[in-house]
Amino acid sequence: MPQNVTIKLPIPPRLNTGLAAARERNLEWMRQQKLVLGHGATHRYIFSAVADLAAYSYPDAEDDDLDLAFDTMGWFFLFDDLFDVPEGCKADAAVDVCRQLITLVTHPSQRETSHDAPLVSAFADIWRRAKMGMSEEWRQRAAHNWMDYLTGNLTEEVDRRTWIPEDFATRMRVGHRTLGLIPSLDLAERVGHFEIPQIIWHSSHLESMRRAAVDAVKLINEVMSLENDDARGDPNLVHCLMRQRNCSRAEAIRLAVTLVQTTVSQLFEQMKLVPLFCARLGLTSSESEKVQRYATALLTWIRGSYDWSRSNGRYSPRTASALSPKMTGQLHPANLTTVSR
Amino acid sequence: MPQNVTIKLPIPPRLNTGLAAARERNLEWMRQQKLVLGHGATHRYIFSAVADLAAYSYPDAEDDDLDLAFDTMGWFFLFDDLFDVPEGCKADAAVDVCRQLITLVTHPSQRETSHDAPLVSAFADIWRRAKMGMSEEWRQRAAHNWMDYLTGNLTEEVDRRTWIPEDFATRMRVGHRTLGLIPSLDLAERVGHFEIPQIIWHSSHLESMRRAAVDAVKLINEVMSLENDDARGDPNLVHCLMRQRNCSRAEAIRLAVTLVQTTVSQLFEQMKLVPLFCARLGLTSSESEKVQRYATALLTWIRGSYDWSRSNGRYSPRTASALSPKMTGQLHPANLTTVSR
Repeated sequence: MPQNVTIKLPIPPRLNTGLAAARERNLEWMRQQKLVLGHGATHRYIFSAVADLAAYSYPDAEDDDLDLAFDTMGWFFLFDDLFDVPEGCKADAAVDVCRQLITLVTHPSQRETSHDAPLVSAFADIWRRAKMGMSEEWRQRAAHNWMDYLTGNLTEEVDRRTWIPEDFATRMRVGHRTLGLIPSLDLAERVGHFEIPQIIWHSSHLESMRRAAVDAVKLINEVMSLENDDARGDPNLVHCLMRQRNCSRAEAIRLAVTLVQTTVSQLFEQMKLVPLFCARLGLTSSESEKVQRYATALLTWIRGSYDWSRSNGRYSPRTASALSPKMTGQLHPANLTTVSR
Repeated sequence: MPQNVTIKLPIPPRLNTGLAAARERNLEWMRQQKLVLGHGATHRYIFSAVADLAAYSYPDAEDDDLDLAFDTMGWFFLFDDLFDVPEGCKADAAVDVCRQLITLVTHPSQRETSHDAPLVSAFADIWRRAKMGMSEEWRQRAAHNWMDYLTGNLTEEVDRRTWIPEDFATRMRVGHRTLGLIPSLDLAERVGHFEIPQIIWHSSHLESMRRAAVDAVKLINEVMSLENDDARGDPNLVHCLMRQRNCSRAEAIRLAVTLVQTTVSQLFEQMKLVPLFCARLGLTSSESEKVQRYATALLTWIRGSYDWSRSNGRYSPRTASALSPKMTGQLHPANLTTVSR
């Protein structure tokens, strides 16, 4: 079982002690936002525990900040699932929601208006809270990163309608955008109440570190969801590796795990250069500390997404079906869309 | 002389018959916008003929459309040169302009206000004209692509202050953003009075074709400007190739030329799939024709940038110094910033 693959990571595990209480508050928010309606949907949402990812990835966030992290993670999964339509069908509703969201993030000065689709109005609420206390520069950058995430989902949708690229590099490139890690790292600044100045954020050094983190989290995701993806006929990077390396499934999984570990090693090497990087820019010790916190947030995310995926029902179809027979087949636990359409 | 390198390209050369008249009108605009002030600056600008690139890259544009293309190309080169400060200096003025431009493109609904820096007010003028007649979706996408271009320049600036990545792939990645080809391709739709629908523009197929075009144009630029860059101590991808392949300068140039040609071949292969791509999306023949025009615009840009660079004074320091002794040294013809600061 791929989801039982163990990946040794030289990063200590963390977990937010506010998990249980935040989970309750998040469920309440999901209901208020009409993202989770009815008994069945509530059960599925509680079982999936997708928003728990926030407790693993933002272990120090508290109160409103932790709620924002939970609500954002909950939103991510429902939005993602909206594109999950049967083969041969078009995810027109998802594309429409995506367009509304793009308009929302690209028009910062527009008055708040009511949005019909729950996924849009819920995002408007998250985005309003995310911007609180953050600089104009952070908002511009975060909006840009959301746009990349949203258009990445359009890319995946139009590719399904034409053909899905088979090579690892191209698929990884799209995966970088749709993973949602870059907006989640912006969120790490927001819930940590600090900011990386615009020009520093754009440096090749921090960009390379972010790329490493995205590579690692994406590959962990792929390995952990392989069995699930196979059961659903969804594409998975492990199959790209099998094709390109002409190797077995087991070998491709081992290769993916090695890639994760190599990437994490590289990230540690890049972290060693952070003090020199800060010195060259003439940063004060307080400014340097922010860069260091940002770098640590990358590692926390890698470890957090791994620990969460091992603890999580989303990647365990067998457990799921044992818990509730209704949740197999069309109402697959990995797909929560029935609650949001 | 690298700038005399010949690259065989299986793309017919084109040139806009309105070049001479458009050149005049562009000079007038540059003066109005205070981008070119005084006798010396005017001479340098005329000699550099940078905006002529528009005549090579948009061979069918006419009247206002051609003017928009010329003015955009003229603006590009002055903006680019603003970052061109002596080694060890910070391009603070350029960073400040960049920030103002980012605010300009990320606030679409903001009222037009007056901008102090000529490069900012000139861009506001270009951007206003570019948006004319284009859909909201095109504007969102074009603004996003401008933001990528602008932040790419911030990346290069902060890298200069810390360290410039040495490997080809990383440098190429930054080069993709700062080349300005993606906004220039958005402009191809604008001056051609057509649009690629949002979801189609984001397809991996068109994205791969764009990447191929950017790779080709970037490498042509690097080969053609090598001698110039060397004289100025500027980084050039040919040196990356020499380091990574442990080869001579001549071999690296040959390799770069081969890379251009391979990339163009791949682009032709990708173009052959365009009819299938359009069929899978169920496009009408009029919609398919737009995708075809967009694909042709990529080829025209590759050929145009090559022909322009061979005809252009920017890459010919010797010709330049023969013409005007003042234009060597600090007032290098490749650097027009003295006219804009």
